[in-house]
Amino acid sequence: MGRWEPGAGQRLVSAALGLFVEEGYERTTVAEIAARAGVTERTFFRYFADKREVLFAGGHEMKVMLVKAVAEAPASATPLGAVASALEVVAAEIFGDMLDFARRRQMIINSSPDLQERELLKLASMTFAVARALRDRGASAAGASLAAETGMAVFKTAFAAWVSESNTRSLSEIIAETFAELRAVVA
Amino acid sequence: MGRWEPGAGQRLVSAALGLFVEEGYERTTVAEIAARAGVTERTFFRYFADKREVLFAGGHEMKVMLVKAVAEAPASATPLGAVASALEVVAAEIFGDMLDFARRRQMIINSSPDLQERELLKLASMTFAVARALRDRGASAAGASLAAETGMAVFKTAFAAWVSESNTRSLSEIIAETFAELRAVVA
Repeated sequence: MGRWEPGAGQRLVSAALGLFVEEGYERTTVAEIAARAGVTERTFFRYFADKREVLFAGGHEMKVMLVKAVAEAPASATPLGAVASALEVVAAEIFGDMLDFARRRQMIINSSPDLQERELLKLASMTFAVARALRDRGASAAGASLAAETGMAVFKTAFAAWVSESNTRSLSEIIAETFAELRAVVA
Repeated sequence: MGRWEPGAGQRLVSAALGLFVEEGYERTTVAEIAARAGVTERTFFRYFADKREVLFAGGHEMKVMLVKAVAEAPASATPLGAVASALEVVAAEIFGDMLDFARRRQMIINSSPDLQERELLKLASMTFAVARALRDRGASAAGASLAAETGMAVFKTAFAAWVSESNTRSLSEIIAETFAELRAVVA
């Protein structure tokens, strides 16, 4: 068995989500996940620190992408404009093709207060990273915090609407609509 | 020693904050807090479940007051308007005379990742409660979430500016100014 097996990471994610939904998150073991993915437990631990990280590893990628996109937004963009364009990048590049995954993941997270806490802390950590990236662009501490918190408020609201059962639209579309709604409610 | 001693709760809070600042949060014990406040450990546990709750007990009061004020906002208020008026109530009734306390508390919270996590989770729980109160007023799920998240984003930003070392203004004033800034950045 090779050290890195092509596709093993994706097979592990898919096996884990299936088991979490079928058996419950708490009852599922790493051994079961590895067995369903057709790899050893050792291989599992090359990809993820524990079973919880199967659900949250993507958050790191999102944070890195947000920070990079905020830094690369046009110099003329306002702090909130830079956050909005960073969220567009993330919506298109990470969440373009992920609705089924995101829905199943959300169902699992909603089943566990521990996972909900973890999700909130990951989002807060992204918000802090975005605020720091805005300060690095020259925003004041208060301006950076307000733009980061407000932008992430839009993201959370849009994300919840996106994964809701009846939705068929893209996350990009819903984020744009939520920013428009924000302008309307703040006016 | 009476079951409830007048002022014991306030003496315990003051003793705890003093010890947390002087000795560090981790090293301070409930026995030391009780001794400095001049009460028994049993009395401490009549007021607080553990030493951490000395810092967070006020969050429950704030949540209850926010939910009540959202419910009692004029029927004509928009969701975000109802949140803004609830934050005004809280700023005046809870934080009118609390700057010294809030500054010392923030210093302690900033010293510990565990306490920072606890603070984020308390704020998230308030945000959910405010969103629920808005839905009870007839707001849509997305409208309630957006207004609650945005209003709490304003509160977090304003609160950080309020407890900053150089500030001398009231929290009410800074919240009003932050809402004005939000209108400017969203426009």
